[in-house]
Amino acid sequence: MPLQPMQAEIIAVGSELLTPQKIDTDSLYLTGELNALGIEVVAKAVVGDDRERLSAMIRDSLRRSPIVILTGGLGPTEDDVTRDAVASALGRELQFNLAVCEGIEARFRLMNRRMAEINRRQAYIIAGADILNNENGTAPGQWVDDNGRIVILLPGPPNELKPMFSRGCLPKLRAAVPSTVIRTRFYRVSGMPESELDQLISPVYTRYSNPVTTILAAPGDIQIHLRARTETEPQAEALLSELGAQIEELLGKRIYSCNGEPLEAVVGTALRRRGETLSVAESCTGGLLAGRITSVAGASDYFAGGFTTYTEAMKSSVLSIDPELLRVHTAVSQPVAEAMALACRERTGSTYALSVTGVAGPGGGTEQNPVGTVYIGLAGGDGCDVRRMRFLGDRTRVRILAVQSALNLLRVHLDSESGR
Amino acid sequence: MPLQPMQAEIIAVGSELLTPQKIDTDSLYLTGELNALGIEVVAKAVVGDDRERLSAMIRDSLRRSPIVILTGGLGPTEDDVTRDAVASALGRELQFNLAVCEGIEARFRLMNRRMAEINRRQAYIIAGADILNNENGTAPGQWVDDNGRIVILLPGPPNELKPMFSRGCLPKLRAAVPSTVIRTRFYRVSGMPESELDQLISPVYTRYSNPVTTILAAPGDIQIHLRARTETEPQAEALLSELGAQIEELLGKRIYSCNGEPLEAVVGTALRRRGETLSVAESCTGGLLAGRITSVAGASDYFAGGFTTYTEAMKSSVLSIDPELLRVHTAVSQPVAEAMALACRERTGSTYALSVTGVAGPGGGTEQNPVGTVYIGLAGGDGCDVRRMRFLGDRTRVRILAVQSALNLLRVHLDSESGR
Repeated sequence: MPLQPMQAEIIAVGSELLTPQKIDTDSLYLTGELNALGIEVVAKAVVGDDRERLSAMIRDSLRRSPIVILTGGLGPTEDDVTRDAVASALGRELQFNLAVCEGIEARFRLMNRRMAEINRRQAYIIAGADILNNENGTAPGQWVDDNGRIVILLPGPPNELKPMFSRGCLPKLRAAVPSTVIRTRFYRVSGMPESELDQLISPVYTRYSNPVTTILAAPGDIQIHLRARTETEPQAEALLSELGAQIEELLGKRIYSCNGEPLEAVVGTALRRRGETLSVAESCTGGLLAGRITSVAGASDYFAGGFTTYTEAMKSSVLSIDPELLRVHTAVSQPVAEAMALACRERTGSTYALSVTGVAGPGGGTEQNPVGTVYIGLAGGDGCDVRRMRFLGDRTRVRILAVQSALNLLRVHLDSESGR
Repeated sequence: MPLQPMQAEIIAVGSELLTPQKIDTDSLYLTGELNALGIEVVAKAVVGDDRERLSAMIRDSLRRSPIVILTGGLGPTEDDVTRDAVASALGRELQFNLAVCEGIEARFRLMNRRMAEINRRQAYIIAGADILNNENGTAPGQWVDDNGRIVILLPGPPNELKPMFSRGCLPKLRAAVPSTVIRTRFYRVSGMPESELDQLISPVYTRYSNPVTTILAAPGDIQIHLRARTETEPQAEALLSELGAQIEELLGKRIYSCNGEPLEAVVGTALRRRGETLSVAESCTGGLLAGRITSVAGASDYFAGGFTTYTEAMKSSVLSIDPELLRVHTAVSQPVAEAMALACRERTGSTYALSVTGVAGPGGGTEQNPVGTVYIGLAGGDGCDVRRMRFLGDRTRVRILAVQSALNLLRVHLDSESGR
């Protein structure tokens, strides 16, 4: 099974990526996709908007590796030197492509704008290159096969790069690499810290060098990737099932997804299946919970909407929270979280309502409710359940953890009701 | 005054830095420190634990730049190839250093442990190198002056690298480079595409090689960085003011920030200063606008809250939108955006209310309102202003652009009222 992997290098272009503030992250996405094809990334580089230097680096990379991928530097300005540098490194001409130019013009017309003259630069294509369509921007990508060496030019913005690579490049790369089968499984877990999870499952997964196990932690969300590489698909699936069954046994219902789906999609699918609906009342998360739920296309099937009651006056006027309750218990309290969820459910007529009220910080903490204290309420047909949580970290992290915990509270409830 | 900046490259060594999960961050710290000395980082690379490849990359870097810094690969195992690769790239010997070895042994004794035999590897020093003391680990760093080209070997762990660089390398580098001062200015612009902006200001900024101008575009948001490098601070500030005044003249009120502050903070500061308040009614952005406004600490000073009316039923029940209006015009229309903003302002008693209703996609587009069509309303004391926008891109991008445009509509309104 020691299949020799094909090798690639990635070069990110842009002077801003050489400042102390910015980092190239496109290469992480590309590495994941290349690895899944059995292609290894053996070197990465970042270079500024300097045609001569970039051209020299492309030549160096091509001497070492048969696949070189460039990201960025395809914009319309003087700064954007990738097209020129690749053409010069390969000793090829840049040719104006009328069809590409007309496509860019059409895109501007759709936005009721006229194409600026400098955008014509983006219609120059390296002689012999295939054009990669850009669904989310003006700059087309390019794919050059130079006597069996492959050079790929991709735009820098992730929302342009990802669909272009996935639709325009993956099928071509798949055809170019020797067939090894890679199959993956992708668990997601909520409600436990990474160290605790690793302590629980590492005695199992460290016994396997194939599948390879990778654990990734985001706030309130842990991903476990299993990656099996074999010669046939049944072999790969058998390896994944063998290791996967042991991990599922150990983690049980803390696993909320076996296919990488995010929590908001898992909750949405469960609600849709049950024909039930949801609404939210938010204070410290200020709309982020609703924003997360509506990031799923088609969320209107089960999501009614919600209330961002950021001030006490809004809590009283919109959700009719008794000002006396706010005075006695303060806005960050069990009774207020409960009243918010119940009122939200009643106002919207939804099956469930989630409420969130807490201290996101950096100010506003008290001895009783230090920064990071959050109450989460879940109202349903059988009353209201409120949890008090304490999250550590800055304002952004506390808000993300509060949203994740609210979704997980509903997920666990739906799970237990379905008797899974 | 055209001080030619000294140029450096950074190479991070370690196969783990070529996986989809890990990223080199040592180079961000090093770039900040080098820039402060007036040394520019012109390229960065990541390479795995492969002696031949690393050696080739070091040779390539030294051909291009007079300072090359390597991080990582100084550990005691077979995988740790940096010492070997540098020695081979420079054509120098590795020599066992007894004093360094005794230092490592002493460190182990302090922890009541015996030094493992493999740690002797860490006592090999490149012939002619200066030893850089490691306060927090066993691997010493090395500084090689190779006929005026400088090669620096640093350990990968940040708690070892940072004190070593700051105490062992900065004084030596400061002596090696001419004294310079770097000052920056950081504009942010909303409401125009990058190409249009560049066409407008490139005739000005391309006349200056100092300050250096860098333009960065995110959805609906363009950043312009100016970076001046001179011998004294007043010289640097004078250069920034000279170029900055011309850019400000050309872009006028499209500049919303001169110090890098994001749009939600600029809007918040203006509202607080005026003692005015804001609320929002969201449909397609589903809470993201409120979430963005409340990402600023202290937003409760001016933000009352809002309504996420995701379904038609919610629009009618919560904001009292006439069902007949929804039937005749559909939810994505000028009259509904206006009614949402007016009702939101009335319900909350806020000075202003923003409304957003549109088709974020991927489904739901019609001939009249294709995916990406968004109506944004702004209600204030003098009635309601509604704009129809058309954004291109996927669901995430359309929602981000809608939020950005809503904030910008209010920002421009506040600006014009303040008679700026």
